[in-house]
Amino acid sequence: MKINKNFLDLEASYLFSTVNKKTREFIASHPDSDVIKLSIGDVTKPLCPVVIDAMHKAVDEMADEKTFRGYPPEQGYDFVREKILEWDYTKRGIDIKLDEIFLSDGAKSDCGNIGDIFATDNTVAICDPVYPVYIDTNIMNGRKDKIIILPCSAETNFLPALPAEGDAVPDIIYLCFPNNPTGTVAPKNYLKQWVDYANAHHSLILFDSAYEAFVTEPDVPKSIYEIEGAKSCAIELRSFSKTAGFTGLRCGYTVVPHELVFDGTELNALWFRRQSTKFNGVSYVTQRAAEAIYSEEGQKQIQENLSFYRENARLIFEGVSAAGFKAFGGKNSPYVWLQIPEGFTSWSFFDELLEECQVVGTPGSGFGKMGEGYLRLTGFGSRERTIEAIERIKASFGR
Amino acid sequence: MKINKNFLDLEASYLFSTVNKKTREFIASHPDSDVIKLSIGDVTKPLCPVVIDAMHKAVDEMADEKTFRGYPPEQGYDFVREKILEWDYTKRGIDIKLDEIFLSDGAKSDCGNIGDIFATDNTVAICDPVYPVYIDTNIMNGRKDKIIILPCSAETNFLPALPAEGDAVPDIIYLCFPNNPTGTVAPKNYLKQWVDYANAHHSLILFDSAYEAFVTEPDVPKSIYEIEGAKSCAIELRSFSKTAGFTGLRCGYTVVPHELVFDGTELNALWFRRQSTKFNGVSYVTQRAAEAIYSEEGQKQIQENLSFYRENARLIFEGVSAAGFKAFGGKNSPYVWLQIPEGFTSWSFFDELLEECQVVGTPGSGFGKMGEGYLRLTGFGSRERTIEAIERIKASFGR
Repeated sequence: MKINKNFLDLEASYLFSTVNKKTREFIASHPDSDVIKLSIGDVTKPLCPVVIDAMHKAVDEMADEKTFRGYPPEQGYDFVREKILEWDYTKRGIDIKLDEIFLSDGAKSDCGNIGDIFATDNTVAICDPVYPVYIDTNIMNGRKDKIIILPCSAETNFLPALPAEGDAVPDIIYLCFPNNPTGTVAPKNYLKQWVDYANAHHSLILFDSAYEAFVTEPDVPKSIYEIEGAKSCAIELRSFSKTAGFTGLRCGYTVVPHELVFDGTELNALWFRRQSTKFNGVSYVTQRAAEAIYSEEGQKQIQENLSFYRENARLIFEGVSAAGFKAFGGKNSPYVWLQIPEGFTSWSFFDELLEECQVVGTPGSGFGKMGEGYLRLTGFGSRERTIEAIERIKASFGR
Repeated sequence: MKINKNFLDLEASYLFSTVNKKTREFIASHPDSDVIKLSIGDVTKPLCPVVIDAMHKAVDEMADEKTFRGYPPEQGYDFVREKILEWDYTKRGIDIKLDEIFLSDGAKSDCGNIGDIFATDNTVAICDPVYPVYIDTNIMNGRKDKIIILPCSAETNFLPALPAEGDAVPDIIYLCFPNNPTGTVAPKNYLKQWVDYANAHHSLILFDSAYEAFVTEPDVPKSIYEIEGAKSCAIELRSFSKTAGFTGLRCGYTVVPHELVFDGTELNALWFRRQSTKFNGVSYVTQRAAEAIYSEEGQKQIQENLSFYRENARLIFEGVSAAGFKAFGGKNSPYVWLQIPEGFTSWSFFDELLEECQVVGTPGSGFGKMGEGYLRLTGFGSRERTIEAIERIKASFGR
């Protein structure tokens, strides 16, 4: 029996474990310290009341033979997909069909598993800095030498340039907006260029919009399908994790329009075959939880939590700017991407911030080479602690 | 962009949809008929009280900032894995380590996804008749020409013969006991031959024990690790679906012992890397549900449901035997595998049973060529309807 040797090409990813280890060690050697973590990418607010009520009701249904539900449909129950269709697409003027929506146990699973339906020898364009799962899953699938890095820098507000005339044409293009880790967003006219490029070259865009719920500005698209032509070149990955605080419940969905036809085959049919063979659907209780956010009251409740995180991000952005730092994101996003002072690396500034302010960030270099010189701060903490962290940063670094 | 062309090698699997379609058509053309479905492989009893209580409690925790849980550990919370370790292994004298247990959203996912960590050019031995997921996932992974069929027939009680001296040595061997669809079980001395074979040839056994909870006889192993030497050659796949009626909740687990070393690499490390990259853990509510069955009261409650299904299977087995049919399974299993009368194919007998008795089974030929001549009946219906179905079969076919 031989193993999949592509796994040996993976770089050990110790970013978050190293952050945690260094933090633990600091606390151990400074027992009187009062460390504030602005490194977390996980939500902290509890699930909202409509979701809790829906889950209790669903649990009770599972206790009664007359209302008990066994295997769920692999693609998700109609009751939740119809709501997704209505609230996330139809109400926004986007024409998506019900059978183009695939409910799943989260965007991370979909983002990795979607690779199953593509040939190994496709080239893939991936931004740097980036969410590491895009890189790692492609290496696992044997595409290590097929990765085309799209460098992102401050000069272009971390929007990667399209391949120039004569450059290699990527078969698959990963885009994530609002972006993790930089917190930047892509305006419509920018995304239109990618859609046109993909259609012209018959490339596929994998559009990760896990953070769309943070968008408040009208010109910033929440869905790639707001861009004309996207249905013939883009798959969209969505998540309830940040939208409704479902990180502990596990639910997301992926949209695969019928217009996506490659090698004469609909990707929708391939993904359905993949999911119905290797996946058995999402917990009934979780599906009822997801359904519950799609009501006037549900939307109001999730917006309260989202506004809270947004305000934290805004406060961080304003605070670090006032302290003299150049920063990105912090608007339409829970992330602030801090440009660190000259003379520091991402990791040495991480140490400096921990020692001087007892504040924990995430070193930008952990997201790729182009992340060197940056640090990610997040708006998922409590208000009081976020403000306290900003005050400390101002006191230590303010000029 | 090129698709994964291996998907085009998949045979369209219409087994259950054809069964459902034929049933619907029969009902439509016989509106006064009273059709009984003994075809379902899904549980019908509601979740037991300890599980319901645990889920309500977990939902309430998710409503409170102080007890809210975000991203779960990819491998599962210790609280549930420690219980699995204690009740499913340690109490039964099996030495498994906590970090060898990987909680998941179900055995179907694991059974498909585990293929990610193996090289494409491994040969795989798969029984016929069989649960179609083994075949389909290997075809998707490009192993269409690497499949070695292990024919199973009545002469050996549907236990496949080991490869003979000189036969091709399979790199990976799929075994499922208690078996779906035949309902037969493998005694220890038989499994010991496979374990010895795998160790001698450095092959890997994928042992699917999704139906272990139905086992009542002491000589029938519930775990492959009851067999000496299995830890160096076998991965075990387990499910809460049939054990505790979790088909609608989605939970299972996979055991990957550290002793499994191939190409100098621990499979445990590879599977951890795969799961932590492409999976983000199981719903906290579901994990608390799973934990709840591991108590004296929890075990008592799940045994009530299991005994109910077992008794249905026993009644079916006795009933069809009394009607003159040769049958397999029905003991340590929810499935009865009926040998159909001469002159019928699986599908023509399906039609005959539907027309004569208004009873729905699953044609054996849907599980592979060797399933031709058989029909699967299941013990997951209600007692009253199961007895009624047996009476009809006796009346129509009894000699």
